[in-house]
Amino acid sequence: MGEHLHDYTLTPRTDEEKQKVMRRLKRIEGQVRGIQKMIEEDRYCVDILVQISAIQSALKNVGYSVTERHMKHCVSDAIAKGEGDDSIEELMAVLKQFSK
Amino acid sequence: MGEHLHDYTLTPRTDEEKQKVMRRLKRIEGQVRGIQKMIEEDRYCVDILVQISAIQSALKNVGYSVTERHMKHCVSDAIAKGEGDDSIEELMAVLKQFSK
Amino acid sequence: MGEHLHDYTLTPRTDEEKQKVMRRLKRIEGQVRGIQKMIEEDRYCVDILVQISAIQSALKNVGYSVTERHMKHCVSDAIAKGEGDDSIEELMAVLKQFSK
Amino acid sequence: MGEHLHDYTLTPRTDEEKQKVMRRLKRIEGQVRGIQKMIEEDRYCVDILVQISAIQSALKNVGYSVTERHMKHCVSDAIAKGEGDDSIEELMAVLKQFSK
Repeated sequence: MGEHLHDYTLTPRTDEEKQKVMRRLKRIEGQVRGIQKMIEEDRYCVDILVQISAIQSALKNVGYSVTERHMKHCVSDAIAKGEGDDSIEELMAVLKQFSK
Repeated sequence: MGEHLHDYTLTPRTDEEKQKVMRRLKRIEGQVRGIQKMIEEDRYCVDILVQISAIQSALKNVGYSVTERHMKHCVSDAIAKGEGDDSIEELMAVLKQFSK
Repeated sequence: MGEHLHDYTLTPRTDEEKQKVMRRLKRIEGQVRGIQKMIEEDRYCVDILVQISAIQSALKNVGYSVTERHMKHCVSDAIAKGEGDDSIEELMAVLKQFSK
Repeated sequence: MGEHLHDYTLTPRTDEEKQKVMRRLKRIEGQVRGIQKMIEEDRYCVDILVQISAIQSALKNVGYSVTERHMKHCVSDAIAKGEGDDSIEELMAVLKQFSK
């Protein structure tokens, strides 16, 4: 249904994997709320920019760990089945968007 | 007290300005929660990466609008008072961090 | 000798592949010389920044095509031999550096 | 004639400034040629990516120093003359392109 090769991961994430990513995403959610508070309190622009750049960096790290897992599972499985090229091209397309 | 030149903006944000940024930050907060849901539902890695990159892009836009306002108010005022260089160097330091 | 898994590509680039990348790199070299000329002629800073950002973008595209080829050959071969993880981790390390 | 506010810097670069930037651009030009050699010698993709990312980083630094000078001279002068907003908006447009 989706525009990508799959809708769900073929190798489901373990509970431990999920918890690790969830903790990072909860922390990022808290940082976004922190910036809302800074805006309301008229905090100094430069301090707000520093916080935004901290979130960017945290999100990038989540992105890297999702990418690494994707290569170790989905892409590797596709390669093993001789369907690597589609999977690699799909990943490249998203990496290009990601590093914009 | 802060490590930066000021703790608060010298020209307070208008209510309209605040509301505009707040709307964007609320939306970003919702997008971060959306990714949490995707992780829990074992959604496909590439779809998660696409969402992360959408948030990166939305955050960057908030960063640009904060930067532009900062230049038009804080930096411009500092330049008018003959104290532009400190203000410009402070901004450059954060821009370098921001585009990492 | 190198700090990486190999010193040379395991699947040598074809002449056509080499020529395609070389053409792009020659063009980038010309763009870098173009900026040198702009500096000497005291051209407007913003025009210089536009040119720098054009080179960044061209270099990124070369990087993407090298990455894609690397995944389709070196990483795929490593996965087929059951040595995928080292190869993927090596690639992730350079992608993190690349998108800084 | 150009699409930007000016064709030339209003405060010409000193010889020392020019030499400093030129040295960095000559070094970048050499790095681009180094990558051409690596391609011809079929060097390992990951080593090529590391070199590309070194050039990206060197170019970014040239970009930052051009931006900082632009703010300290052109933008500051425009602000002093009460024409800051156009100059700031022009700079923001190029910064957005730059950090893509």
